Amino acid sequence: MRALGLLALAGVAAIGAAAPGAANARGDPGLEARVQRLEDVAAIGRLLTDYGRFVDARDWKAFANLYAEDGGTWSGGFGTAVGRTAIYEMMMKAMGPTPGPNYHVMSNFEIDVDGDTAKAWSRWTFVSGAPDGKPAILYGGRYQDTLVRENGQWKFKRRDVVSDVSGPPPQR
Amino acid sequence: MRALGLLALAGVAAIGAAAPGAANARGDPGLEARVQRLEDVAAIGRLLTDYGRFVDARDWKAFANLYAEDGGTWSGGFGTAVGRTAIYEMMMKAMGPTPGPNYHVMSNFEIDVDGDTAKAWSRWTFVSGAPDGKPAILYGGRYQDTLVRENGQWKFKRRDVVSDVSGPPPQR
Amino acid sequence: MRALGLLALAGVAAIGAAAPGAANARGDPGLEARVQRLEDVAAIGRLLTDYGRFVDARDWKAFANLYAEDGGTWSGGFGTAVGRTAIYEMMMKAMGPTPGPNYHVMSNFEIDVDGDTAKAWSRWTFVSGAPDGKPAILYGGRYQDTLVRENGQWKFKRRDVVSDVSGPPPQR
Repeated sequence: MRALGLLALAGVAAIGAAAPGAANARGDPGLEARVQRLEDVAAIGRLLTDYGRFVDARDWKAFANLYAEDGGTWSGGFGTAVGRTAIYEMMMKAMGPTPGPNYHVMSNFEIDVDGDTAKAWSRWTFVSGAPDGKPAILYGGRYQDTLVRENGQWKFKRRDVVSDVSGPPPQR
Repeated sequence: MRALGLLALAGVAAIGAAAPGAANARGDPGLEARVQRLEDVAAIGRLLTDYGRFVDARDWKAFANLYAEDGGTWSGGFGTAVGRTAIYEMMMKAMGPTPGPNYHVMSNFEIDVDGDTAKAWSRWTFVSGAPDGKPAILYGGRYQDTLVRENGQWKFKRRDVVSDVSGPPPQR
Repeated sequence: MRALGLLALAGVAAIGAAAPGAANARGDPGLEARVQRLEDVAAIGRLLTDYGRFVDARDWKAFANLYAEDGGTWSGGFGTAVGRTAIYEMMMKAMGPTPGPNYHVMSNFEIDVDGDTAKAWSRWTFVSGAPDGKPAILYGGRYQDTLVRENGQWKFKRRDVVSDVSGPPPQR
């Protein structure tokens, strides 16, 4: 009976450990919380990649939707825009509606999740074709992001775009 | 009999929790299904990276094995090849057996899994050394893939290689 | 009492399923072991990315801490250094304390975990700005790593840096 009682308590502990977000008596996160963190990092990684994909496609509507509905902010070489409408308009003006022979390499993702907010750091490299020769890297640098889970989806709360290597003046 | 009954009930719970793709009463995927999805994305990411590694090593046998045994297809600047043997022969003819001072940067992975099939989108950048100066990007673009789980392993069902920046004519 | 007994047996099953590295009767790893592997791959990926981030920041103290306390080794174009102090001194001498207009693209991660050790293969591309023109790739190649879990954290046991494309002579 003693053993049975102990097992019973062990059973309660095990169920506790499996509950979403539950922490056990040692303070470790439960398995579901660990899976959730992996999923969050993957979802934020996808957000970082979508950014490059939508820029390269000049799909500014999809691009603007990557930002938080509540005050999502883009800040970089074109200025600072707050809110999806302002972001859409700034990018449309800065880069136009038509894709060109160029693209972004998105790399070096570092993502730190803390509940429903997160921070990210990553690198960008802008590769452009040239009519008369080899493709070249025109610009490159890093992104510094604050992210927020909004209605179950990760969004940019603020993205700061920093240039680390200088190139010729920006061109459309 | 009592013990058997208890085991039976415990067994039902355990099997339910562990079954691949099990969904709970709310329609959420079970934890095991969520882990499986993360593993699938990781395995497909590895496939995308192996592609670059085997191209750079000119290991066309390993390269051909990345494709589905049943009609795996490569399509791009060298033409279209269906099946491992045809893929092997096309690549051997196009790029030869000997690695050179050049490599592929594989980036921007976007992977969507749906059971035993998946779609992927990613970017490639071909960097080549030059005898007389700086390394340069000769070509770059994107991959559009359909993938299939075949005998427990993810394979390319079809890979379409698209160029986004133009370079000089291809060279061996 | 009947209910308590059910919990007891369920508890045994749950503990078995949740134990680190637990394997079921078919020899499959348990769910927790699968999650642990995903976490290990993510942690090692972060190590690979931190390497580039600390090099680019010329933060050689943080850089040296990425290596195993017990004989961590860096080997590449600057020579071979064994141990954190030697690694710190070699990098400080080779690249100096001040960040410049250049950065590393870290890509093509291939990570194989085996318990408390692991192997990794990945690519690096060194992009540098130029005072008089476009940014350029000065060097690029691959990393071949042996990793070890030390005090719960993944560290480089040995990193071999191989160049695949040649550039001009190294410069500070």
